[in-house]
Amino acid sequence: MRTLVPSPVRIIGTGLIGGSLGMALSGAGVPVQVEDVSPGTTALAVELGVGALPAPEDEDPALVLVAAPPDVAAALVDRALRSWPQALVSDVASVKTTVLEGLRERARPADLPRYIGGHPMAGREVSGLIAARADLFQGRPFVVVPHERTLPEAVTALRGLATEIGAVPVTLDAASHDIAVAQVSHVPQVMASLLGATLLEPTETALGLSGQGLRDTTRIADSDPRLWVEILGANAAAVAAVLSPVQERLTAVLAALDSLTGSPDPARGSRRALADLIADGNRGVRRIPGKHGGRTDAFATLVVLVPDRPGELARLLTEIGQIGVNLEDLRLEHELGRAVGLAHIAIDASREELLTRELAERGWTVAEA
Amino acid sequence: MRTLVPSPVRIIGTGLIGGSLGMALSGAGVPVQVEDVSPGTTALAVELGVGALPAPEDEDPALVLVAAPPDVAAALVDRALRSWPQALVSDVASVKTTVLEGLRERARPADLPRYIGGHPMAGREVSGLIAARADLFQGRPFVVVPHERTLPEAVTALRGLATEIGAVPVTLDAASHDIAVAQVSHVPQVMASLLGATLLEPTETALGLSGQGLRDTTRIADSDPRLWVEILGANAAAVAAVLSPVQERLTAVLAALDSLTGSPDPARGSRRALADLIADGNRGVRRIPGKHGGRTDAFATLVVLVPDRPGELARLLTEIGQIGVNLEDLRLEHELGRAVGLAHIAIDASREELLTRELAERGWTVAEA
Repeated sequence: MRTLVPSPVRIIGTGLIGGSLGMALSGAGVPVQVEDVSPGTTALAVELGVGALPAPEDEDPALVLVAAPPDVAAALVDRALRSWPQALVSDVASVKTTVLEGLRERARPADLPRYIGGHPMAGREVSGLIAARADLFQGRPFVVVPHERTLPEAVTALRGLATEIGAVPVTLDAASHDIAVAQVSHVPQVMASLLGATLLEPTETALGLSGQGLRDTTRIADSDPRLWVEILGANAAAVAAVLSPVQERLTAVLAALDSLTGSPDPARGSRRALADLIADGNRGVRRIPGKHGGRTDAFATLVVLVPDRPGELARLLTEIGQIGVNLEDLRLEHELGRAVGLAHIAIDASREELLTRELAERGWTVAEA
Repeated sequence: MRTLVPSPVRIIGTGLIGGSLGMALSGAGVPVQVEDVSPGTTALAVELGVGALPAPEDEDPALVLVAAPPDVAAALVDRALRSWPQALVSDVASVKTTVLEGLRERARPADLPRYIGGHPMAGREVSGLIAARADLFQGRPFVVVPHERTLPEAVTALRGLATEIGAVPVTLDAASHDIAVAQVSHVPQVMASLLGATLLEPTETALGLSGQGLRDTTRIADSDPRLWVEILGANAAAVAAVLSPVQERLTAVLAALDSLTGSPDPARGSRRALADLIADGNRGVRRIPGKHGGRTDAFATLVVLVPDRPGELARLLTEIGQIGVNLEDLRLEHELGRAVGLAHIAIDASREELLTRELAERGWTVAEA
């Protein structure tokens, strides 16, 4: 089978990411060889369809993916560059400058052009091979991280691999990559962990009042401490650069709260400091693609005919709730003397088909917006 | 219709909470009168099935629910206590001590026993009447907040109301309530807003790398600034008590990151500080009911027969992924010489029915665990 990926591919380290990469590549018909420090894990990887055991008669790999823990990534990339002098070599560590620096210290300069960093941006709170899935990277960004001496064919190969497994290739240099992941991944992890750690205090009764907001904000707090110490340590400067202003703002929030505590005369600006915090949070979160006001148009609008009788609109809204679709916006169009009103209903675009079908089944007339 | 709720019920303020309460009560057959400062909103509330306009010949309300913004709650509760000398009066403000203090200052002492605080714990990022839903409180906690002079029948009435609308009544005094909501609701809001505000900095490319983790941790950052200034201001002391240790910990995290930045000799304990943060976050988040290790058993286990041929288990895992169900755990049971293995699959209990049906449709044999 012809694919965009130079093969055979050798995957070194078959945890969640390596295992998922192997499953996805094998599924796309790419010959994959697997190798893990644990023979048991290697055997399970073969059984799970990650790839095959390397045999003495096998061709040398054309592309090596090091999917081992980040602290050993540079050493394993260097070993691969030396073992297979024709192979392109990449790694999947979540911080790229440290791997590159490690390689610059240890690798033969002539080998370096065959190295290109990679970062498939997918993960789950669960880790390890058993959590691996062939579709883990579907629709997710795959950052391709060349350095100034990387061979052009290495860029082509890794972007091709990303495309082959359903991911979206994004090319960034190592420094830009590390700043970006500090902003959208590492700092959110620290904030979720800080919040999660506060939950050691509440009584069980208090925790019984938890809603979806708390569950959402703390979900990623259930992540692997060993892995995250490596990540945060390796990207310490970029993470600190984002967290320092957070600390300053938290200090200002605490001062505002202190001034508002039981004081008949709170400092001017205390309420303003809190309002600005929430408003800045509004503006920030709306920049995330796929959210309100973000780049992607995530909403669809349905128009539903509503008989002009008491309770009909309420029934429609109730049924939309029962169908399990969140109403993002609602506009009503009424004409005097007409027997129906038009409800313009904005919903998450991914729910449009479901809602259209379900409403029609319940007897509503759904028109296109 | 006989219900657990003294009626008629008068709802003052028909926003998201008041509107949803009216829809739920009307749906349960309780006579509801509605009143809002905006005549337009009142009219829409009637049209949406929140309740009826009060008429001169109507009975006086037996129970009044003040669902107006928190800063006017005490004044409106006082007005209701004076207007209807036989009525029980409650409110839905998210902070209870300030309402009680406001009432102690302004209400006639003889009226106070008819007041009982309430807090139906439900909300959405969207606000206003148009977002109201009859099922908003279904399965959610409804905190009933008596003070030391509240009439026993007021406790019974408000717990009955909570039950009638499908909520779970929880009785707490005002101080305990305010501490609990600071812990599980107000501090998560501040943390999400602090994180959301950092998203004003990243480039569009960086934001393009956002994953579900960032979306989840910042979802509630899209909340109403006006409402939250009221809430945080009213509960300032309790919120500050939770945030102060967060600030101390953030300071320690920044010191650890600073020590790990490019230093050949990081301070002893720097990595430990980061590991402890993540580990404490793990332990905290697992205390949330319904999460791993929490009080509620959120997992179901299915046993699927897997033919002992290469790729079959991978196919099963791939299909579970396609069905859209997350695998929480997997245990394999193999017997030598047997033609099938047993895959014990742990999943979110709410997905059990879906997964069982979908796997069966795809030809898998699913046994009960």
